Amino acid sequence: MNTFGRIFRVSIFGESHGAQIGVLLDGVPEGLALCEKDFEADIARRAPGAPGTTPRREADKPQIVSGVYDGHTTGAPLCILFANENTRSQDYADFDAVPRPGHADYVAAVKWDWANDPRGGGHFSGRLTLPVVAAGVVAKKVLDGMKFSARLTELGGSTDSSEWESLIAAASADGDSLGGVVECSVDGVPIGLGEPFWDSVESLLAHAMFSIPGVRGIEFGDGFKASAMRGSEHNDPFGPEGPLKNGSGGANGGITNGAPLKFRVAFKPTSSISRPQQTWNYAEERMDTLSVKGRHDVCFARRTPVIVEAMAAIVLADLV
Amino acid sequence: MNTFGRIFRVSIFGESHGAQIGVLLDGVPEGLALCEKDFEADIARRAPGAPGTTPRREADKPQIVSGVYDGHTTGAPLCILFANENTRSQDYADFDAVPRPGHADYVAAVKWDWANDPRGGGHFSGRLTLPVVAAGVVAKKVLDGMKFSARLTELGGSTDSSEWESLIAAASADGDSLGGVVECSVDGVPIGLGEPFWDSVESLLAHAMFSIPGVRGIEFGDGFKASAMRGSEHNDPFGPEGPLKNGSGGANGGITNGAPLKFRVAFKPTSSISRPQQTWNYAEERMDTLSVKGRHDVCFARRTPVIVEAMAAIVLADLV
Amino acid sequence: MNTFGRIFRVSIFGESHGAQIGVLLDGVPEGLALCEKDFEADIARRAPGAPGTTPRREADKPQIVSGVYDGHTTGAPLCILFANENTRSQDYADFDAVPRPGHADYVAAVKWDWANDPRGGGHFSGRLTLPVVAAGVVAKKVLDGMKFSARLTELGGSTDSSEWESLIAAASADGDSLGGVVECSVDGVPIGLGEPFWDSVESLLAHAMFSIPGVRGIEFGDGFKASAMRGSEHNDPFGPEGPLKNGSGGANGGITNGAPLKFRVAFKPTSSISRPQQTWNYAEERMDTLSVKGRHDVCFARRTPVIVEAMAAIVLADLV
Amino acid sequence: MNTFGRIFRVSIFGESHGAQIGVLLDGVPEGLALCEKDFEADIARRAPGAPGTTPRREADKPQIVSGVYDGHTTGAPLCILFANENTRSQDYADFDAVPRPGHADYVAAVKWDWANDPRGGGHFSGRLTLPVVAAGVVAKKVLDGMKFSARLTELGGSTDSSEWESLIAAASADGDSLGGVVECSVDGVPIGLGEPFWDSVESLLAHAMFSIPGVRGIEFGDGFKASAMRGSEHNDPFGPEGPLKNGSGGANGGITNGAPLKFRVAFKPTSSISRPQQTWNYAEERMDTLSVKGRHDVCFARRTPVIVEAMAAIVLADLV
Repeated sequence: MNTFGRIFRVSIFGESHGAQIGVLLDGVPEGLALCEKDFEADIARRAPGAPGTTPRREADKPQIVSGVYDGHTTGAPLCILFANENTRSQDYADFDAVPRPGHADYVAAVKWDWANDPRGGGHFSGRLTLPVVAAGVVAKKVLDGMKFSARLTELGGSTDSSEWESLIAAASADGDSLGGVVECSVDGVPIGLGEPFWDSVESLLAHAMFSIPGVRGIEFGDGFKASAMRGSEHNDPFGPEGPLKNGSGGANGGITNGAPLKFRVAFKPTSSISRPQQTWNYAEERMDTLSVKGRHDVCFARRTPVIVEAMAAIVLADLV
Repeated sequence: MNTFGRIFRVSIFGESHGAQIGVLLDGVPEGLALCEKDFEADIARRAPGAPGTTPRREADKPQIVSGVYDGHTTGAPLCILFANENTRSQDYADFDAVPRPGHADYVAAVKWDWANDPRGGGHFSGRLTLPVVAAGVVAKKVLDGMKFSARLTELGGSTDSSEWESLIAAASADGDSLGGVVECSVDGVPIGLGEPFWDSVESLLAHAMFSIPGVRGIEFGDGFKASAMRGSEHNDPFGPEGPLKNGSGGANGGITNGAPLKFRVAFKPTSSISRPQQTWNYAEERMDTLSVKGRHDVCFARRTPVIVEAMAAIVLADLV
Repeated sequence: MNTFGRIFRVSIFGESHGAQIGVLLDGVPEGLALCEKDFEADIARRAPGAPGTTPRREADKPQIVSGVYDGHTTGAPLCILFANENTRSQDYADFDAVPRPGHADYVAAVKWDWANDPRGGGHFSGRLTLPVVAAGVVAKKVLDGMKFSARLTELGGSTDSSEWESLIAAASADGDSLGGVVECSVDGVPIGLGEPFWDSVESLLAHAMFSIPGVRGIEFGDGFKASAMRGSEHNDPFGPEGPLKNGSGGANGGITNGAPLKFRVAFKPTSSISRPQQTWNYAEERMDTLSVKGRHDVCFARRTPVIVEAMAAIVLADLV
Repeated sequence: MNTFGRIFRVSIFGESHGAQIGVLLDGVPEGLALCEKDFEADIARRAPGAPGTTPRREADKPQIVSGVYDGHTTGAPLCILFANENTRSQDYADFDAVPRPGHADYVAAVKWDWANDPRGGGHFSGRLTLPVVAAGVVAKKVLDGMKFSARLTELGGSTDSSEWESLIAAASADGDSLGGVVECSVDGVPIGLGEPFWDSVESLLAHAMFSIPGVRGIEFGDGFKASAMRGSEHNDPFGPEGPLKNGSGGANGGITNGAPLKFRVAFKPTSSISRPQQTWNYAEERMDTLSVKGRHDVCFARRTPVIVEAMAAIVLADLV
């Protein structure tokens, strides 16, 4: 299923190398001011350009097809399209036979019967995070008063951002790639979002984050460190304004407690590397050596903070 | 919503201190051999008894109400009940006014309007993980051929299990509590479970795990460490039998790749501690000191591996 | 799937000849006064007793298992059980081999692989309308201010109720059965319930009504007669208080318009008749003659008005 | 919610007078041959042109945006767009203040707060049945081997089709409108589709049919007449090939029995008539007289058989 949410519902469609990709939003409240310019800032944050990101350029201009009238949402389904202009699909040949390590080529081939299916370089693509960012822009409008701030706090194992450019340069020189950690906080969250069972706010956020390609872990508040603490140290005492510290990351019993939501998301290094890798050649039934060409980010994690924010906003828009 | 799953659907009901709790399972295939004895082993693993777990004892005998005929499932909804025998609800007085740090007393009071609502010690209770374990038993039957093994690998920050009893004794002497980390692996998973977007296998597992009370983080395969690796190090090369190592934790692009699913879940220390804690007294509008009485686990994480397995089985039964 | 609704969710479970049947309600608002006595009046309306209804008697006493505390709903899932006391399952032997005309014996056998499955006389049973009635009682409490009144307006083709007893006596003497039409109106419905597409209020009501066993048709307002009218005759002019007549049955464009909801539901004659019928004997591969024994209603439609009301209430409780 | 189905999911979007309308299909199996030409025949059946239908002309050319590669479906979400070329939105002025009898102007205004919302002439429009027809084309491909045939069997109360043109001419001369009844049968339906509770095949079909604008009733097999029959007359005896007649309309206990699905759908007369009607003027708080201008069908029921088929196919594609 390609839809997320119960009330604020987000459906993503399109393929990396088709003519258009898009998003259909259902459950958008009526009366929100919304125009195509509103998407620019967040879309720019996802765009490549910084060192370590792909040279593939897209205009990434949203076209609002439905659900907006006279500059305001109507409450009817809101469809937004993006053209794919800069495709070079020959870059993706032959991965059915010789799957790229770290990619879905192999599982897609098995799942969909080794048909000549473009999903490997198609519906799986990181390009589909663009409509996610667009959905996030609408979700943030719904969540007037909440403030989303995600940023990369660790790259290639270093939390010292002054080292990052040289780490990237070194990895790039080796035809290799790097990962990173994104920290997100959401301020202004009302008390009471989330459910005690199944749909805890952490469950829903984790669900959304793990649908971003390349995520390997998520932790809230003290996170994995909490498991080494004592209760007296990890518990957040209540004061007159709510929790006095935020070891929980903003929720108790699955329900927001008024403190900022705080969580960290671990991104793997980019899977596509030009450095030769071993893989199995299914056509010839032998081990083979693969060097992934094409235009790829050395560290795609750099482009993800706005995607993390969008996913958080999508989840919270569904809960409010 | 108190239901999880699309095809294999699990609904939990009941309160810690009501007469009965239970689970309703929809989408169970017909023809599975199932009797009440089948639940004993997993239920025993969740039961207290080990050092560091609560002295509260329950018979925890399942009663199959529907969906089984002549020792086999019929495909109709399967309802299982458990009696609550050993309740001492006076232990839970007054937490609306003086909320326990780390508990949902405060958020429940705000969310449900400060009504005299028993949910704080009610539908939130860890006791509701008992029907989860029962659902897991049925799910494992559905997943004939998969092998679930979760165990505690870290307690109170130590991975050396010979130290654990003394760590617990020390925390207990201080009226304090400890957390832990559970590692789970699932063998025999077919290739192709999960969807590229929204319902990646990691998304669904994370969703389910974060609905276990007290979870602070989850990571797959190399997990947070992956973000400090290079692509050439983290990528799993394919061989003739599938991935040659398991840095991804068993999935590519959100879809299982035939390697075992491997993930780690961080549990916080038990929130209820007898050691005095600061909290806000809403009735008297002043800071107050609270010592949580009642029978509590020093380290409830010890009882969670079978719950982690149950949740994993519930997710996978929904996907196959 | 055995669940209906998005917000007010009703799950039915149990088999006619098992120990207990029940209903699980999720999404019940907190704070409604509710006790077991509240169910008596509606349950009595569904009970047999009138001429033409089965002599099978059940105590039909509800047991509230969860979701109620101190006489009020808590907002947590509400589970209600009923014991099955008066079962004579030998009445149901052999219908797999020689399926009863008008019953699901045959399709159930094919759908569930000719397994020895008790569903034919199991989860299909009209007895499961008892938990539906219970759910309706809760739904009506949610819909404080709406008034549900359904009644049988036609029996055996006659709208003159003074003839009904003699029609029943005649059919009974012939070992035969009769059908009927139930008319339902709901007063006090606010304007605006329902959605323009897919989930029109008529769609949802029709969906629910056709899950009552034995329904053959539903029509709203002028119903089938509307298709023979001109627009100037069928259209409902608006006045200061809303529609001046109710040809639409209470909705425009799928959305309630403030007029009472009005619809008619056609029930077939009871399928089980003692009069001999032709059917196929699958065991012996020949035509056979079947006389259905057991205790059956001559006209089960007499017991359905309260079920129609319950279904309407369930739908509206989900919409408000 | 603007989505229908669990597995084969159909989402409709767009407004009658926006730039584009469309449909997003999720759960389409991979490997179906599909091109834009495949839609022509069914779209032509919905197009106006026959006497009694609107002179508004649209090119109605589908554009497949995603989910098809190299002439075949990929299993990824399938998005189809249609341009709106021939809009005259000035025709729809002022209906918020002076609502058209039989239309949703009034309820939409109340439901969405009297905002200047274009839904009255927007998302409610019969134009949105065009993407429904497109979804039906894809659904029929999924249901290879089933045969859908719906046709108008009654117009303006007459079942003699030779009278229809003169009935339409007469109504048209009076500035009035007519309704009709569509009969649909589906051959080749396998045994076993549908569920015993909630999601009976009749429930799902009725749900879908009542989301077509202007439907007033639906009946299966003997329909309302069944309620005047005796059981011995209405019951369908089984023979070696299944039911020997089809009084049930193709299902027992909510599950298809192998006989053709047979049902009749009642359509009201077109609501928009040029003949003056009484209505309330909300702006001036007085009764007013309204003559609905614009281009409207005298009998829109003529264009609905292909829509009824599409809805039936959408339901069945979700069930198989």
